Amino acid sequence: MSELIFIPAVICAFALLSTLLFNRYLAKHDAGNEKMRELQKHIREGAWTFMFEEARVFAVVTGIIAVILWQLFYWEVAFAFLLGAFLSMSAGFIGMHSATFANARVTNAVQHSEKKAFNIAIAGGAIMGLAVAGLALGGLTLLFLIFREAFNPATLTIESKAVPLVSNILGREINFIKAALIVSAYSMGASLVALFDRVGGGIFTKAADMAADLVGKAEAHLPEDDPRNPASIADNVGDNVGDVGGLGADLLESFVGSIISVIVIYLYVYVGRSNASISALLEQLGVPLGLSMQQYWWLLIVPLLIISFGIIATLISLIYIIANKKAKNLQATLMNGTRLSALLTMLFAFIIIYLSPMNLSVFWCILIGALAGIAIGYIAEYYTSSAYRPVKKLAEETSAGAAIGITGGMALGMLSTFIPGLVVAIAIVATYKLAGLFGIAYGALGMLSFVGMTVSVDTYGPIADNAGGIAQGAGLPEKVRKITDRLDAIGNTTAAIGKGFAIGSAAFSALALIVAYMWSAAGSAGEVTIPTIEMLSANPKIGATVIAALFLGAMIPYVFSALLIQAVSDTAKKMVEEIKRQFRRFPDILKGKRRPDYNKCIAITSQNGLRKMVLPAIITIILPLLVGFILGKYALAGFLIGALLSCMQLAIYCANTGGALDNAKKYIEDGHYGGKGSEAHIASVIGDTIGDPLKDTVGPSLDILVKLMSVIAILFASLFPSYPIFF
Amino acid sequence: MSELIFIPAVICAFALLSTLLFNRYLAKHDAGNEKMRELQKHIREGAWTFMFEEARVFAVVTGIIAVILWQLFYWEVAFAFLLGAFLSMSAGFIGMHSATFANARVTNAVQHSEKKAFNIAIAGGAIMGLAVAGLALGGLTLLFLIFREAFNPATLTIESKAVPLVSNILGREINFIKAALIVSAYSMGASLVALFDRVGGGIFTKAADMAADLVGKAEAHLPEDDPRNPASIADNVGDNVGDVGGLGADLLESFVGSIISVIVIYLYVYVGRSNASISALLEQLGVPLGLSMQQYWWLLIVPLLIISFGIIATLISLIYIIANKKAKNLQATLMNGTRLSALLTMLFAFIIIYLSPMNLSVFWCILIGALAGIAIGYIAEYYTSSAYRPVKKLAEETSAGAAIGITGGMALGMLSTFIPGLVVAIAIVATYKLAGLFGIAYGALGMLSFVGMTVSVDTYGPIADNAGGIAQGAGLPEKVRKITDRLDAIGNTTAAIGKGFAIGSAAFSALALIVAYMWSAAGSAGEVTIPTIEMLSANPKIGATVIAALFLGAMIPYVFSALLIQAVSDTAKKMVEEIKRQFRRFPDILKGKRRPDYNKCIAITSQNGLRKMVLPAIITIILPLLVGFILGKYALAGFLIGALLSCMQLAIYCANTGGALDNAKKYIEDGHYGGKGSEAHIASVIGDTIGDPLKDTVGPSLDILVKLMSVIAILFASLFPSYPIFF
Repeated sequence: MSELIFIPAVICAFALLSTLLFNRYLAKHDAGNEKMRELQKHIREGAWTFMFEEARVFAVVTGIIAVILWQLFYWEVAFAFLLGAFLSMSAGFIGMHSATFANARVTNAVQHSEKKAFNIAIAGGAIMGLAVAGLALGGLTLLFLIFREAFNPATLTIESKAVPLVSNILGREINFIKAALIVSAYSMGASLVALFDRVGGGIFTKAADMAADLVGKAEAHLPEDDPRNPASIADNVGDNVGDVGGLGADLLESFVGSIISVIVIYLYVYVGRSNASISALLEQLGVPLGLSMQQYWWLLIVPLLIISFGIIATLISLIYIIANKKAKNLQATLMNGTRLSALLTMLFAFIIIYLSPMNLSVFWCILIGALAGIAIGYIAEYYTSSAYRPVKKLAEETSAGAAIGITGGMALGMLSTFIPGLVVAIAIVATYKLAGLFGIAYGALGMLSFVGMTVSVDTYGPIADNAGGIAQGAGLPEKVRKITDRLDAIGNTTAAIGKGFAIGSAAFSALALIVAYMWSAAGSAGEVTIPTIEMLSANPKIGATVIAALFLGAMIPYVFSALLIQAVSDTAKKMVEEIKRQFRRFPDILKGKRRPDYNKCIAITSQNGLRKMVLPAIITIILPLLVGFILGKYALAGFLIGALLSCMQLAIYCANTGGALDNAKKYIEDGHYGGKGSEAHIASVIGDTIGDPLKDTVGPSLDILVKLMSVIAILFASLFPSYPIFF
Repeated sequence: MSELIFIPAVICAFALLSTLLFNRYLAKHDAGNEKMRELQKHIREGAWTFMFEEARVFAVVTGIIAVILWQLFYWEVAFAFLLGAFLSMSAGFIGMHSATFANARVTNAVQHSEKKAFNIAIAGGAIMGLAVAGLALGGLTLLFLIFREAFNPATLTIESKAVPLVSNILGREINFIKAALIVSAYSMGASLVALFDRVGGGIFTKAADMAADLVGKAEAHLPEDDPRNPASIADNVGDNVGDVGGLGADLLESFVGSIISVIVIYLYVYVGRSNASISALLEQLGVPLGLSMQQYWWLLIVPLLIISFGIIATLISLIYIIANKKAKNLQATLMNGTRLSALLTMLFAFIIIYLSPMNLSVFWCILIGALAGIAIGYIAEYYTSSAYRPVKKLAEETSAGAAIGITGGMALGMLSTFIPGLVVAIAIVATYKLAGLFGIAYGALGMLSFVGMTVSVDTYGPIADNAGGIAQGAGLPEKVRKITDRLDAIGNTTAAIGKGFAIGSAAFSALALIVAYMWSAAGSAGEVTIPTIEMLSANPKIGATVIAALFLGAMIPYVFSALLIQAVSDTAKKMVEEIKRQFRRFPDILKGKRRPDYNKCIAITSQNGLRKMVLPAIITIILPLLVGFILGKYALAGFLIGALLSCMQLAIYCANTGGALDNAKKYIEDGHYGGKGSEAHIASVIGDTIGDPLKDTVGPSLDILVKLMSVIAILFASLFPSYPIFF
């Protein structure tokens, strides 16, 4: 095994160590008075309760799947799967800890210094960002170290295995590269937990939010986060569960997916390198045909190295942000820090590619990927920030009535798919031109290379938000709340860009995973060939099945989204009943003389959120298997592409419609078109409530949907028949 | 030329003649008192004004395109294009005439006999239905008769032509089958006008509707269709312009598209029949390899024959509906009539295929297509009718607030894509299995074979609706309005099924057109080969361009929809200002003492509707050409498929969300959850206003979008390079 692998190993040990340092930094600060501590405790306990409940569900599901993987393939595959799932779960827990540990400390620090409070929130975010990146990388590195034999180039080959359970039915052995299965299983574990986290957390957070707004604000006329509202703690818990826990697992999953797609493609290319058309691919990368041992390892580990140095870049940028003394313009500091991390990551990537046996075309792919991601991020910001024309126009439309406003929001979201679509198409053509199928995978890696920074900033937001909630709940002076609101707003731009970025990178890395699937499917016949998928084939056994599968795939994201929206709506309805029950039963609650039963609200939301996440998750797991077994492996590629196309458009539409409606509301609350309490404001609240599940439940879950289906496809590729079973 | 062609010729002459008889039947009835006549006149004039304005725009656009086609190909191609455009326009005019001729007569007849009024409305619809089918078929038959030399099997071949303008730039001649160009150009003419009609009419009708509701109902508290509302006439005009004029052109376009896709595919297969894999396709149809002259004509004319007998079936069913004396259950009569037409059409199709040189597998494709269409139609009915659970649940959700209701409506629309997606996928696989690429095209033909009936019933609806408007406007007794409302409701189920049906058939016939495009693209190299499109190609010159194009294509329907929604919203805003201006300036209007200036409202809506239809139309025309010329002919296939996938999902989502929100409102108005004026009702009105542009502007326009782009692709296929220009 090459000594290169120790570089990522050391860097992720370093990353994880630094999270401890950031945690000590947090612990040094005070969490404020008793009321604040109590609120923090409530939020923390609520979040832990939900996470543990969720983990119990995970344990059962992953256990079952691990046994299946073990029986079908090897114990190593099952182990890798469990490791991925465990680390993804851990990322959620660490994020939850840091966020609910930091929030009250931020509130307290606000009373002394804004910059100090900002630093605490950033430190809380940093724990999450570094943990996500460190764990993702650490797990992969661990797999390389433990299963080094499976990655050994001397023995790397397509293995055949007769699985008693399967081969009897299929009438053939199954063929795969073991190392590819190991990394895919790891990725599947991470993705599966991420989907659960996103769906479950997304339902929780938005149901709590909707219920709190519907009864608390609209009926009982309580302000946001008022402690008399029984749903207030659940709402704050939701911010952590959805925006922190869900987000961490989500980005860890993206991260892992983009790395393993490069690795899987590379493994197949390496094994099939004697094939003329495949060796042409290696040649395109500038790699000599007779790869030495050292060169083999270089190519395999390059993605890990790039990500490792992305972590270093993140760390440097975080220190820059915290150490920067100019407290005047915190927003600029945050933005500059993010820019710095992107810049440094690209610089490191350039050096790594330069040192590697590959030519610079691969670096250009990484750069194109990163630029495409940033461009899509900025477009999201343009369409959802009240600083630009679209949201201003939307606020004006909203002032003419809720219906015109919502219609306008939908149109805005639809229109905002234009540039991302164009950018992704151009990036695909350009990266492919530069480095063939590798180009697309490296483009995806480029988009995700500085994800640690994105996670840190994205976690900063909910921490500041929660700090505001605690200030309100603890009855701190208006001034404190003003500052926490300002801190919250600082992260908005960066977070909006990050959100758009996440969708763009999800689309690209899903495509990379689909390409990896195609290699796995093409390679499973015992020898490796370059994968091609005919949409309409002259081979009558394939015929129009791929097109039919495209239709099926394109429909799935809609159905999936519908289930999520209904889940949010149903859960919110249950919670509204509970809040009304408490108000009716104990009128003292509204007078502030009796503490509402927060836990009951949390319990209802938890139970419903967890119950409702099962069906969408099962659909995601079962469907690719069903399509693969019935329509065959080519059709499955069509299915995945169809799903990806729909997902990307729908995710952008949902995210930007929701984001714009949210900010149009805030813009009106800032005093435009009559400000708070005006007709326009009431209309904008309706719009915001509609946008909420779209942007925070549907959008993020769609990002994971296709990637999880693709990685399942990779794992089971060798089992699928070539042609539909009924042909 | 075969004498078979005289069968469609005679049948369409007969169909057109029968429209005159129906018109005489209408003319025999009285249009009522002076007030009613006056209202009818206003609506009629408003509609004509809009149609003529629109026709002026058409004349310019089609003129320019005709010159281009003439220069590129032959004058015959330009002629066919103009004929298609002219007939499509005529269909709109005829529909407009019959609807605005029948409406007051229905109102008047209601005062005597409900069945008589029903018959008049049906007769009005029949004129439209038979005219659409007769004109579509007549035009094609005419082309066969005039240009019989181009279709002559003895000389049928792939022609090469050096176009001075183009060949210099491309550096090569362009290759095509002239007969295929002629029928495609005819189809393009019909589609182009249909798109203009749908987009322009859709913007007009919904802007008028929204404006009338926003100011009239919500602010001035006037009832629907109150003559004091300056927008009331525009609203009624809109129903005719959008639901009648637009619909007629739309279905004529679907009709023609599904016929010509069979013909184009057949022409290429015939020319390339010496190629082994192509002859296998003919063999699959049971056609002997050495086709005789007679057999050639049979195969060419089969689609025309099926459609011809579909017209006969429609006519028989219409007579059954009108002659049926049992006035007790008109809804059942209408439904039975529709069923009868479907049944008869299938019976005729069976006989035709049985007599043709093909085996029955083609009939099964037709049947599968028809059944798939009906299934999708019923699903639409299930999700949008208040008789079933989804809308009842939606009404309940709406009673909890506008936000929950609209969110529920969106979820419902998304969920309703499930079965249609499944049905289309199964139909694709099944028809392909039965008759290869022909199977898909015949499936589409089967879906559309009894379109005459669908148009008749769909036109019946707005006529009954308008009759109600006239009753209200003329101040007739409440009883009359009750009956017209009942008549209106009778058509709803059939119309809802028809709407779903239209989307399903649009998807299928777009796919058939894309397949025809692939043949045209594959055949343009001088010899015919079976078309295949690789989504991901081993050929580095194609590489990932097809996937990139899929992304581009999938994005277009979203942008297109956004433009339409914004157009409706902007136009409605202009109109709201005008209504408010009139109320402010002449307070007597609201007191009923002064007639509002109806024409000003109509003029504003017309101008805006027409201006705003230009950009979406240009996008539709330019984009396929741009993609074809820049990314090449394979990528264009990807682009079209991507657009189709998005279009179908989005169209179903929009149509069913809008339809369900509309009917949830009506359900509440019927007295549920507090009935009219309740909180639930106000919430449901907001939902309905949002749903309106979705279901009546966006949905129907999306149906045409892909078909128009595909037929443009067919026409220009020979011009596109094989590979991206920059590779």
